[in-house]
Amino acid sequence: MSARYSDIEPYTPGEQPQNRKYIKLNTNESPFPPAPSVIEAIKGESGSLNLYPDPECKELCKTIADYAGVSPENVFVGNGSDEVLAFSFLAFCDKDKGACYPDISYGFYSVYADLCCIDGKAVPLTNDYRVEPSDYFNAGRTIYIANPNAPTGMSLTLDEIRNILDNNRENVVVIDEAYVDFGGTTAVPLVSEYDNLLVVRTFSKSRNLAGARLGFGIAGKEIIQDLNTMKFSFNPYNADRLSLVAGKAAIEDEAYFRQCVDTVIKNREYTAESLKKAGFFVLPSDANFIFAKKEGVSGESLYKTLREAGILVRHFNKPRIDDFIRITIGTKEQMDALIEVLERI
Amino acid sequence: MSARYSDIEPYTPGEQPQNRKYIKLNTNESPFPPAPSVIEAIKGESGSLNLYPDPECKELCKTIADYAGVSPENVFVGNGSDEVLAFSFLAFCDKDKGACYPDISYGFYSVYADLCCIDGKAVPLTNDYRVEPSDYFNAGRTIYIANPNAPTGMSLTLDEIRNILDNNRENVVVIDEAYVDFGGTTAVPLVSEYDNLLVVRTFSKSRNLAGARLGFGIAGKEIIQDLNTMKFSFNPYNADRLSLVAGKAAIEDEAYFRQCVDTVIKNREYTAESLKKAGFFVLPSDANFIFAKKEGVSGESLYKTLREAGILVRHFNKPRIDDFIRITIGTKEQMDALIEVLERI
Repeated sequence: MSARYSDIEPYTPGEQPQNRKYIKLNTNESPFPPAPSVIEAIKGESGSLNLYPDPECKELCKTIADYAGVSPENVFVGNGSDEVLAFSFLAFCDKDKGACYPDISYGFYSVYADLCCIDGKAVPLTNDYRVEPSDYFNAGRTIYIANPNAPTGMSLTLDEIRNILDNNRENVVVIDEAYVDFGGTTAVPLVSEYDNLLVVRTFSKSRNLAGARLGFGIAGKEIIQDLNTMKFSFNPYNADRLSLVAGKAAIEDEAYFRQCVDTVIKNREYTAESLKKAGFFVLPSDANFIFAKKEGVSGESLYKTLREAGILVRHFNKPRIDDFIRITIGTKEQMDALIEVLERI
Repeated sequence: MSARYSDIEPYTPGEQPQNRKYIKLNTNESPFPPAPSVIEAIKGESGSLNLYPDPECKELCKTIADYAGVSPENVFVGNGSDEVLAFSFLAFCDKDKGACYPDISYGFYSVYADLCCIDGKAVPLTNDYRVEPSDYFNAGRTIYIANPNAPTGMSLTLDEIRNILDNNRENVVVIDEAYVDFGGTTAVPLVSEYDNLLVVRTFSKSRNLAGARLGFGIAGKEIIQDLNTMKFSFNPYNADRLSLVAGKAAIEDEAYFRQCVDTVIKNREYTAESLKKAGFFVLPSDANFIFAKKEGVSGESLYKTLREAGILVRHFNKPRIDDFIRITIGTKEQMDALIEVLERI
């Protein structure tokens, strides 16, 4: 291993057990399969897999652009939002421009900082787990904020984001909207006003396509060009043919999307209420997960009890949040199984 | 764009025209669709796309390991061999350990050197377009050799590769075998002897899956671990669910694979003979393409004449090879169409 990475600590994804069948509430996947039209689109494309995909992802960029109300030159398609984030770290950080992000947030931001050999600064959340906008003013760094934040589920308002953007005209501000469809407010309408804004989205959560590896970025033309420069210097054919048609079909089936998202939101409110009744503290969530704890019980013990009952959730062994577990919202049946176990604690 | 990349020149993939229907002989794809069993496997998996793929790609690693006669811990799966190469540059090069590669070879090697901000040295091919092994002895750098080389199509023998490995015990030697199934000799059997060897392979050519974005590396356990460290620091879910099952099915259908490869080899010999009869100089090729030129005609003019006739080939505007065109071997019908145009020149 090259010297610069001899100490790097890779990201640890949530468990993906391949043996025992668990109720999987640990990686914020959708509990619903892709829309039938998505499966049809894949079937129609699979005979052409001997040919490379379009490295410019033109068709999907256009579909996303039309949907988001921007132009195709404002859209970048990546192999999952992780890859979009990785390219953004490469493109917008260097030895003179570090990165900053909340100390409690998506764990990958600090790994990307290490990967790019740049200075990464963790900005503490407030005592009530909020992102405080003024903590990011004139950061002198590229700013990464998940909105809604993970694993808390809590959101910034559009005015708060605008405030961060106004006070960082020299810094790129990346708003990671992996979970925005479940209750947050998207910053996409601000793209036309702010050339320092990059909104990152994924097909993995609300679009039921975690297995297809597809994410995208929406930003001003210049930021998108820079992301493309990185992609064409790293892996030009990053999105495969089947994922490209799957993504397009997923965006086009708005009714199925709404139905899935609405069900998750309903199940989230139901689960949060049930857990509160059972004596849990639950942070308000705009995402497809909730972050909950119970006085007097460690997060690890909650995690273990659920695991023994065949239910996987995520526990972070990290100061300030080690009492919590993050519970992905699944189907009503899955949530009932979870609630039943937690009520007994 | 961060300062370190302000001058980076991304890789230029072969054209992927989305409008006019060309006979596409420019990006070394297979002219044959994936095996029926591959399409079936994709169909069976598409309903599970709401779930993340296995980031360790365990099943595919095992299938590849069984096929290649190594153990699963000797296998790394990437999003195309491009991504495997990119991770290897990150893992095995730094400011004290540059990279070297033939001056006429896969154009991406120098781009990766730039991306990783390391010193990349182009070692000239001999006058007869050969890789001279002794030019790479004690390189003090990570060595990248495509075998067969592209765009020449010419191969090193296993003894020559062994010679390079013996004289570089302190350097990782990457043998990029994208085209090896069409006539080269694989270095995989040397993996058990040399812990400095990384063999990189792809599903894009002989496995008819360019559109699925799947490649792999075979090496000693330590090199594979380092590649995984990079992957888990960049994009842990790099291979999607459909590509993983497609790759597995493609390896398992040995008969279809052999039939496709044998047909390409037969068509290659036929095309090379026909072009020689038409006065062309054709380099001996162990790949699914040939590199050809005609005295008194520029490569650009050959490229343009073919393009006007609806046939895309690849021309490299580069010293020593700008008289050549690289022609992907397609079906017999496609080759006849090409030969007909070139005979008229």
